[in-house]
Amino acid sequence: MFESAEIGRTIDKETFDDAEPALREALLEAQYELQQQKRFAVIILINGIEGAGKGETVKLLNEWMDPRLIEVSTFDQPTDEELARPPAWRYWRQLPAKGRIGIMFGNWYSQMLQARVHGRLKNAALDQAIDSAESLERMLCDEGTLIFKFWFHLSKDQMDVRLKTLQDDPLHSWRISPLDWLQSKTYDKFVRYGERVLRRSSRDYAPWYVVEGVDENYRNLTVGRILLEGLQAALKSKDRPVPQPHAAPLTSSLEGNGLLDSLDLSQALEKEDYKEQLAVEQARLSGLMRNKKMRKHSLVAVFEGNDAAGKGGAIRRVAAALDPRQYRIVPIAAPTDEELAQPYLWRFWRHIPARGKFTVFDRSWYGRVLVERVEGYASPADWLRAYGEINDFEEQLVEAGAVVVKFWLAIDQGTQLERFKAREKIPFKRFKITEDDWRNREKWPQYRDAVEDMVDRTSTSIAPWTLVEANNKHFARVKVIRTINDALEAAFAKD
Amino acid sequence: MFESAEIGRTIDKETFDDAEPALREALLEAQYELQQQKRFAVIILINGIEGAGKGETVKLLNEWMDPRLIEVSTFDQPTDEELARPPAWRYWRQLPAKGRIGIMFGNWYSQMLQARVHGRLKNAALDQAIDSAESLERMLCDEGTLIFKFWFHLSKDQMDVRLKTLQDDPLHSWRISPLDWLQSKTYDKFVRYGERVLRRSSRDYAPWYVVEGVDENYRNLTVGRILLEGLQAALKSKDRPVPQPHAAPLTSSLEGNGLLDSLDLSQALEKEDYKEQLAVEQARLSGLMRNKKMRKHSLVAVFEGNDAAGKGGAIRRVAAALDPRQYRIVPIAAPTDEELAQPYLWRFWRHIPARGKFTVFDRSWYGRVLVERVEGYASPADWLRAYGEINDFEEQLVEAGAVVVKFWLAIDQGTQLERFKAREKIPFKRFKITEDDWRNREKWPQYRDAVEDMVDRTSTSIAPWTLVEANNKHFARVKVIRTINDALEAAFAKD
Repeated sequence: MFESAEIGRTIDKETFDDAEPALREALLEAQYELQQQKRFAVIILINGIEGAGKGETVKLLNEWMDPRLIEVSTFDQPTDEELARPPAWRYWRQLPAKGRIGIMFGNWYSQMLQARVHGRLKNAALDQAIDSAESLERMLCDEGTLIFKFWFHLSKDQMDVRLKTLQDDPLHSWRISPLDWLQSKTYDKFVRYGERVLRRSSRDYAPWYVVEGVDENYRNLTVGRILLEGLQAALKSKDRPVPQPHAAPLTSSLEGNGLLDSLDLSQALEKEDYKEQLAVEQARLSGLMRNKKMRKHSLVAVFEGNDAAGKGGAIRRVAAALDPRQYRIVPIAAPTDEELAQPYLWRFWRHIPARGKFTVFDRSWYGRVLVERVEGYASPADWLRAYGEINDFEEQLVEAGAVVVKFWLAIDQGTQLERFKAREKIPFKRFKITEDDWRNREKWPQYRDAVEDMVDRTSTSIAPWTLVEANNKHFARVKVIRTINDALEAAFAKD
Repeated sequence: MFESAEIGRTIDKETFDDAEPALREALLEAQYELQQQKRFAVIILINGIEGAGKGETVKLLNEWMDPRLIEVSTFDQPTDEELARPPAWRYWRQLPAKGRIGIMFGNWYSQMLQARVHGRLKNAALDQAIDSAESLERMLCDEGTLIFKFWFHLSKDQMDVRLKTLQDDPLHSWRISPLDWLQSKTYDKFVRYGERVLRRSSRDYAPWYVVEGVDENYRNLTVGRILLEGLQAALKSKDRPVPQPHAAPLTSSLEGNGLLDSLDLSQALEKEDYKEQLAVEQARLSGLMRNKKMRKHSLVAVFEGNDAAGKGGAIRRVAAALDPRQYRIVPIAAPTDEELAQPYLWRFWRHIPARGKFTVFDRSWYGRVLVERVEGYASPADWLRAYGEINDFEEQLVEAGAVVVKFWLAIDQGTQLERFKAREKIPFKRFKITEDDWRNREKWPQYRDAVEDMVDRTSTSIAPWTLVEANNKHFARVKVIRTINDALEAAFAKD
């Protein structure tokens, strides 16, 4: 869930300075419109890694907007008055009225995460706390509150650097308490439980936005734009008293800075190396699948990717290593009548492998947030709730022993064009290229947004996405099988 | 939650025979319409006490409707195939397609309840299971499923009688296994955890219907009518793909059989007895409030009731026993501007007492499901979700040590009329009677439905409703104070 917040995105000063004035003006305008409509309140929850710029960002928001219409609350140790009442009382006291913005530091998520990291809560109790948070937020949304949840992220290394920098800076050194430093040691725990919290509490009506905290310009522009898009969408939708926006892609606003842009597509394997490595990995896979530890596990592999990225070829190289009785390949095309009469996950549930077995999904449930989103087959409400539903679904698989690996095979537009043309020329491949493919190609930017959102919202530690650089087919095929092998080995090692 | 299913409601054979043909025809018609629309599927979950007529009712539904369009599933021990996959897989396999009805015995609720009763789950794990069930049901609803959840209830005595009757009947004796009998011993646990499950999983999109199981005619007619009303509402609402009905009152269809009808309003106290008992209870209350155990608790008393039922008088008798520094009376009238700019529970949260203190709410958050429902100030979606929100709210109070007592002061229409007229004659009471009161009186049946629904859905073991027979003010006042005293004593005894 945090991968795309560890790639070191930056925005240079010039770009920032160009964009800032218009953004400020638009935010201010939205804020006044909010105040005039008085139709809903806005809550901004601030969470994440120490030193990732939480405080600085909030300070900037107060500068950009009218601070008289913003209330910033921090929740540290409860007061006597608060201790004498239910835990939620302190939050109710600080709710912003309709027309106003409330920014909450140290909110319910901080409380539960600290308690979990320090061992005062177990996982089951953490889940209860998450559930309560969900009920509270759902109720607030139903009552007319627009909620933004920001998670400011840093990789461990980035955090170390940043905390040291801050300490060295006399202006900022007061901010670093021993407790902060302690948190640097508990970074891993914090991130692990943080992911659990984000995975379970990111809902269509109140999703998490994970923001990479390392570069100030990137961070500020990102937060500002997400707020602005969300506010504008909610202010416009006057038909409903309850704002339910959050349909804007998380990343599109900052082109050239995305997760896919960060891939080095030039990676390649020479033919000889390919043959050798492929043989090694295939033998390894064959062995792992016959390992008796496999009886406790199943394997689920999801293949998605750009058209002509080489999914079929990669799948064939996986299958070649295996006994056909042990695996099944499920190609996902248009749903049948029978499948249309069921909830959309039904067609995948029916192909879930038993323990000891392996199912390859050639395209998958992610169609909901890719093609169905881009082509408008699913309404925003439907594909937005799908992220949470898919995370729930995959969690159930993993809890039943499944090893879940998910591949996005990425190529660039030039490579795609070459392959399309080549296909048209080779008679036995011509069936592989259709009008649809050319049409999809026109929507490259929309697909890119959808892919980035998908990875941001569904790449979890229990079922991570692997982005596969697939301009070179050899490289891609080896990376795929190796990733599967590594995942199986890791699962066996944990048993 | 189960009170209204233990009052011994019956319907005589003649009434049943009169009603049955029309109900059957209408159900059949709705079923065919469902099949033709193919717009949504229907799932009926069957749970509850052993011997409460679950099987018989399902059998009858199959007779009444077209069994070719109904699939009945039972889930007992999982098969090998099921054990090799995630627990939910068995339910996904049995989902009815759009246009069809699926009846599920031994569903996810039965599984979690059995596990909890037998100690295989603790409360935190039970809550996790409830949370998963909620996610599943919400997703199913969003995907176009209409869910009915029936809890067939019997009091312990009724169950004992019924299980014995069944055993004596050679036709039915095969149904009684040792396990069933065992369940009779675990009745208390089953009901306690059952209430927890119902309280937390009754949502606007999939509420629980608690059906008293003791009388066959009542049970069958009730289930049939709830199904019919729900189906018809969903079939009609063609604007949304997703059916979200369940707005029909749970009990209105069966007049004269309600919880309020079961009250003996003739109960009274002579003046001398009243004075004596009032003094005793007031002294008791005064002592309890000064008890040092009160430091761990707060007290929240909610007063609702028919107009002119004597709420004010009862509250004054409570207050008379107390030190004014210890209690506050919060009269709830129309919300202020400031309150209107907040979620509706906000105005009550702000008056929540600290530990050691007592707040009397003269009318309360229940306005949402009483006056706001009946007068149409709240949309059905809003007041339907309020039951769950209120249960959540009260659970938070109780978990923070609050003792929550809730009174419905009930009078009959004749008594109300007398009091209205008397008020109009006495100058200093004239302000107490307004046009509104007369208008409300016209809506007596709608208020009765709302009250019965409210009690059915929000009377919980942790925050039960007390229905107070208030035709005689003396009787009512003493009952109120005594109930408060008993609740405090019970809480102190548990410490």
